Amino acid sequence: MHLVGQNVIDIRNPRTGEYDYQIVPISQEDLVKRCIKMREGQVSWQQLGVKGRIKVLEEWQTILRGAREEILEAVTNDTGRNRESIREVDGIINWISRWSIIAEKEFAPVTQSTQIDFIKIESDYSPYSLVGIISPWNFPLSLSLMDAIPALLAGCAVIIKPSEVTPRFVEPVLNTIKQVPQLAEVLTYILGAGETGAQLIEQVDMVCFTGSVATGRKVAVAGAKRFIPVFTELGGKDPAIVTETVDIERTASAILVGSVLGVGHQCYSLERIYVQESIVDEFVATLTKKASNLKLAYPTPTSGEIGPLIYAPQADIISRHLHDAVEKGAEIHCGGKIEEIGGGLWCRPTVITGVNHDMKIMTEETFGPIMAIMPYSDVAEAIRLANDSEFGLSAAVLAGTVEEALAIGRRIDAGGISINDTGLAPFFIGTEGEVEKTAFKSSGLGGSRLGSASIKRFVRKKALIYNTTSERSPWWYED
Amino acid sequence: MHLVGQNVIDIRNPRTGEYDYQIVPISQEDLVKRCIKMREGQVSWQQLGVKGRIKVLEEWQTILRGAREEILEAVTNDTGRNRESIREVDGIINWISRWSIIAEKEFAPVTQSTQIDFIKIESDYSPYSLVGIISPWNFPLSLSLMDAIPALLAGCAVIIKPSEVTPRFVEPVLNTIKQVPQLAEVLTYILGAGETGAQLIEQVDMVCFTGSVATGRKVAVAGAKRFIPVFTELGGKDPAIVTETVDIERTASAILVGSVLGVGHQCYSLERIYVQESIVDEFVATLTKKASNLKLAYPTPTSGEIGPLIYAPQADIISRHLHDAVEKGAEIHCGGKIEEIGGGLWCRPTVITGVNHDMKIMTEETFGPIMAIMPYSDVAEAIRLANDSEFGLSAAVLAGTVEEALAIGRRIDAGGISINDTGLAPFFIGTEGEVEKTAFKSSGLGGSRLGSASIKRFVRKKALIYNTTSERSPWWYED
Repeated sequence: MHLVGQNVIDIRNPRTGEYDYQIVPISQEDLVKRCIKMREGQVSWQQLGVKGRIKVLEEWQTILRGAREEILEAVTNDTGRNRESIREVDGIINWISRWSIIAEKEFAPVTQSTQIDFIKIESDYSPYSLVGIISPWNFPLSLSLMDAIPALLAGCAVIIKPSEVTPRFVEPVLNTIKQVPQLAEVLTYILGAGETGAQLIEQVDMVCFTGSVATGRKVAVAGAKRFIPVFTELGGKDPAIVTETVDIERTASAILVGSVLGVGHQCYSLERIYVQESIVDEFVATLTKKASNLKLAYPTPTSGEIGPLIYAPQADIISRHLHDAVEKGAEIHCGGKIEEIGGGLWCRPTVITGVNHDMKIMTEETFGPIMAIMPYSDVAEAIRLANDSEFGLSAAVLAGTVEEALAIGRRIDAGGISINDTGLAPFFIGTEGEVEKTAFKSSGLGGSRLGSASIKRFVRKKALIYNTTSERSPWWYED
Repeated sequence: MHLVGQNVIDIRNPRTGEYDYQIVPISQEDLVKRCIKMREGQVSWQQLGVKGRIKVLEEWQTILRGAREEILEAVTNDTGRNRESIREVDGIINWISRWSIIAEKEFAPVTQSTQIDFIKIESDYSPYSLVGIISPWNFPLSLSLMDAIPALLAGCAVIIKPSEVTPRFVEPVLNTIKQVPQLAEVLTYILGAGETGAQLIEQVDMVCFTGSVATGRKVAVAGAKRFIPVFTELGGKDPAIVTETVDIERTASAILVGSVLGVGHQCYSLERIYVQESIVDEFVATLTKKASNLKLAYPTPTSGEIGPLIYAPQADIISRHLHDAVEKGAEIHCGGKIEEIGGGLWCRPTVITGVNHDMKIMTEETFGPIMAIMPYSDVAEAIRLANDSEFGLSAAVLAGTVEEALAIGRRIDAGGISINDTGLAPFFIGTEGEVEKTAFKSSGLGGSRLGSASIKRFVRKKALIYNTTSERSPWWYED
């Protein structure tokens, strides 16, 4: 299929570099109509109650399971990756179960009732009618649904504008949605680029945005002008602190996966590794060896662990950060360059030392499989360096004992801290209602994406406060 | 004391109309310096821990009790009101106790710990360093401290810019703060008008704004541009629904106080009263009688219940709304005009009928002691009318039974619903950790000002997620 027209957007394939897919951005008129229709659908969706909504999402879950292979193929085409794509597809199917448990607990018909003297208080909630989600290209499927699933369970209608860089997954997912008519009335995807996203913000009651800091700030301002809540989860420059008491073999393996999984195209990728100076040489040698063992996923997605870079402009950023560092005296131990293979752009796991905070590679989000290692002498210095960043998404601390790591982790300005492991924060999204984490500094605003606080982002809370007696309140006028 | 200079702001006395007080706005340079100093103070304030902070606020509470008369006199001069000023002063003293209970519960050193397989999760929190509060003139003392007290307990430093219309209370309150040196390092007031407020937003990590919708939106945009959280509680046009099963005497008394307390200068004043048509005539007659019995607090603040209008431009708005309604056919049963007495501007409790939603008095915030009464035929119509507003702060439903009122209240789009009484929502702020309410629509953004959710506005949440074993996580690479 090859469409022709002014409005068509050609989509690049990350494995071949070819423009082999196209989308037609939704017109503003159709977008407005779609939003009106979703709002209409939301009325009965809300009335369905949380148990009814869970039932509908469980139907969808069954259909998603049946469509697993088609969706997986599309996500794999979007990202060029296999292992990560499996995690995406299985992840969203799993999330429906996780969030259903939390939703049922949080949105029971009457959640609280409190009696104080002659006054009784009952809690109620009211979902935002229409939530707009603008999602990025790095985990196109899962990040399009991470907020959508809890929003739907809360009783909202949801309209998703995924990244135009990776839109192939939308068609098979829309096919599954269409098979659940009640769901199709309150959940849809629209296609388009930045302009479509901007138009969406003008139509909805709440926005969830995952993506870059630059765009995230624009979304926050656009939302503020309309006076609607905006949730943003943006970039990171996640630090890891490695103390001298670690098991070096084990820690190097943990750092490696925390940095290069998904080619480092993760907001919570470790990009700054601070290692105690007495072990830094051994650590670098061990990490370089392990990093060099990983293979490119070429010629097929299952040929190796490291997929292609998804978005060509990101390859330029990675390249610029590496050049800037090397020019300023940094040393590359493995990887270290962008390679064009079979039309795709690739970057092997890269270990780089001799870095400092005057280099872009230690201050700006690189979003590649780059492990920049900087030694420190004492823990206070390590914490100072870790916190010397405009970002504060997540972090990792690896030490000989949990207690040692925990004491350091408490002092890091970030929302999710992995202790003696890496990448734990996103892994536990939605598992447990009581755990919350928020992005610090420029990494985001708008509350926790984890736990019961997360699902409450999508509702206004009401307190029904009643005088249970015929008594007059003490503040009334005499008469 | 009479200051002369370009920067002096002359302050009008609401009882006399005279400009008998002056303030000198803080310079931008001094404001920046003050913020830096507060940030420095915040470091040890946070380290003090929640119990230590409670102890300091309890010291302040004792000193506030001792200074009650001076503060009461200043607030009375600011607002011209007695009864409401007593509630303000006693309220803030009481809030310190209420919020301390919630803070101790919410900010225990380790709030949660959850074990899932080999993963354990611990919750931690990190306060915003410096919170800026911009507060209005209608309840100058209490609204300047409503967010400040929980923010302090959460571990933030707080800088307050109160309204330039009612700044007299600041001096005696600052005197009490100075007597608690640890508190003086993290809590202060600065004086000035809108420009000072705008400058403050540029310096802080979070903003709480209480005031008009127009300014609130500007604050939200300014905050979004700086990418800091903004909490706003803005105007209201609170509806009451009165069903035909009510006790008319009792209900008229409740509506009266809900509408005219504080001369109606309350965001949660009832401004739209929807009464079932079969009882509307009797209800209007009863309410008019009760309203006419209330006396102006003239010549002294204790001479009657109804104080002067605080802010002259607000008198113009009230007047315009009344004129607009009468021109379009409304009928005034009592009150109904602005009177100039002794230099002050006054408005007696006003009952007005024959109103509809084409009149400003039913759509824009009037902020005066005006009870606009509109009949309805059935409950569905009453709910439709109540929800036909750009505002959604709070509401009241009065019916023969709690059950009847509750069924209606659940369908009103507002955060705090008084059931079979009025004005209950603000009365319970901070009493119970588990009750939350959020402003709907243009009435505000940024979460609940009630309960434990409220105090959590002032912190970022951290999840420390740890691998308790030496096991390798299942997603690590083979090597």
